[in-house]
Amino acid sequence: MSGHADTPWRTIHSAHHHCGWDNALEPVTTVAPGETLTLQCLDAAGGHYKPESTAADIATMDPARVNPVTGPVFVDGAEPGDALKVTIRDFAPSGFGWSAIIPDFGLLADQFTAPRLHLWDYDRTARTPGVFSTHARVPLKPFAGTIGVALAEPGAHDIIPPRRTGGNMDIRDMAAGTELYLPVEVAGALFSVGDTHAAQGDGEVCGTAIESAMDITVTLDLVKGGAPAFPRFSTPGPVTRHLDAKGYEATTGIGPDLMTAARDAVSGMVDHLSRWRDLAPEDAYLLCSVCGDLRISEVVDAPNWVVSFYFPRIVFE
Amino acid sequence: MSGHADTPWRTIHSAHHHCGWDNALEPVTTVAPGETLTLQCLDAAGGHYKPESTAADIATMDPARVNPVTGPVFVDGAEPGDALKVTIRDFAPSGFGWSAIIPDFGLLADQFTAPRLHLWDYDRTARTPGVFSTHARVPLKPFAGTIGVALAEPGAHDIIPPRRTGGNMDIRDMAAGTELYLPVEVAGALFSVGDTHAAQGDGEVCGTAIESAMDITVTLDLVKGGAPAFPRFSTPGPVTRHLDAKGYEATTGIGPDLMTAARDAVSGMVDHLSRWRDLAPEDAYLLCSVCGDLRISEVVDAPNWVVSFYFPRIVFE
Repeated sequence: MSGHADTPWRTIHSAHHHCGWDNALEPVTTVAPGETLTLQCLDAAGGHYKPESTAADIATMDPARVNPVTGPVFVDGAEPGDALKVTIRDFAPSGFGWSAIIPDFGLLADQFTAPRLHLWDYDRTARTPGVFSTHARVPLKPFAGTIGVALAEPGAHDIIPPRRTGGNMDIRDMAAGTELYLPVEVAGALFSVGDTHAAQGDGEVCGTAIESAMDITVTLDLVKGGAPAFPRFSTPGPVTRHLDAKGYEATTGIGPDLMTAARDAVSGMVDHLSRWRDLAPEDAYLLCSVCGDLRISEVVDAPNWVVSFYFPRIVFE
Repeated sequence: MSGHADTPWRTIHSAHHHCGWDNALEPVTTVAPGETLTLQCLDAAGGHYKPESTAADIATMDPARVNPVTGPVFVDGAEPGDALKVTIRDFAPSGFGWSAIIPDFGLLADQFTAPRLHLWDYDRTARTPGVFSTHARVPLKPFAGTIGVALAEPGAHDIIPPRRTGGNMDIRDMAAGTELYLPVEVAGALFSVGDTHAAQGDGEVCGTAIESAMDITVTLDLVKGGAPAFPRFSTPGPVTRHLDAKGYEATTGIGPDLMTAARDAVSGMVDHLSRWRDLAPEDAYLLCSVCGDLRISEVVDAPNWVVSFYFPRIVFE
């Protein structure tokens, strides 16, 4: 369902991208509240990876050019204190994607120090599950990893960390049908989007999803005076039925620190998948990132909390 | 589906309960690996609450008698280094339950200081959703909040914190069909179970679920030498289809500390539900605990992480 080829609304080409948040950036266009437009998004490496790329190419990624976002779009009438309501309509994915273990990045960066690259060639129309060598098939659910508005603070802000204004939130339910409410901090809101993903689990534990260029169609609207403290969203229906039919394998981490518990849960799953499916630990870690979910099972039984990592068994069936 | 009334296996009466973990406790029975038995479980307050109870009764709960578990059961041949495999067969819930805001307990204890009690009277057979006054109907999914084995360390250990040997994990998928693997630390494993819940979301954010006495039927088996570092489990199928059909409202917390982000996400949902559904904040907080889910959306985009809280809309439909 591309759907945007012969529609009347505007398309913003991916040439109009930026690699940081800065409220002094010139808007690429102005839209009225309620308007729908399509934004063409580069992948998080800005096209660095090709079908012939290898892990050696990870070292030559330019840090100044990662995570480009398309925009900014000025929304007429948006003022600080408003909510920008973003209705995510549709994605037109490219069919090519990449996932990587990048040294010094990811939840288990201390355990996985060598670069690793996996390339995905998926059906952009049928959206059948992405094939991971002979081991696994990962159900796809395209979404926008980075979606947000400019900050009130002047100057350039790094694109990598998400903030109260959204940005690189990597919430895997920023998918078709979701309504997102972002707090507007500057006139016109200055909306940008990018870092599109074909699939990811909660956590994005290795640091990358199925990174993939896509066009995204959104409707931008305003709720005057409705700024939430942090981004809020509604999903139109279930969020995991594309992959939950066969149940889950789950591991836990238990202790007084949520981050340590998250690391223990993911380490436990890497060990379990490696043994159970005879996977290289690096492949298990990549698979955890593109389809496994970090959940906080309990956060009240002091002094120990439980973080669980859920891996969908359908990937191996 | 009670199913245990005229079956041949043993039933352990809830009189055989204990309120802490201690590997010197006398086993109530010995089972062979592969044996199935039913354990009658008290609720987490040991029957303190009755249909006529009020919030004033929260102050008279005896801390020394809280969270009783039924057992311990000695599993013949279990040795340190083995995994105890617990297959959860079935629950026979009582039909009566309670949820409470207990002062100085729960994720938002600083914001909710007054005691509050909600009593549930649900259909124990049909398991239709539990009615929350005129506001909401909460789909039920019975599970065991506390399930574990004795620790190697001698002496009495508080029942409240979960540990590497399981215990009060409050993982809402310890439900019918789940297979749980626990690390055995003492001869016979010394298995106990209790703190049964009729429904709970990931996080158990206010500190209580729909607390409810139940009988639980389990099969206990051994995997020699198979002790996991932390508890691991498999679910037989999807884990949220009983409540996901209408989608979710979701709030986020974003920042460098997962606990703060979790608190911000839940605070945001309490605010949102209070406004959207005209709920008292205390009722919104209780509802969040019995059916909303804390998820770690991303934990790699340093220095800021995203924790999201998902509330199922079906509760209001």
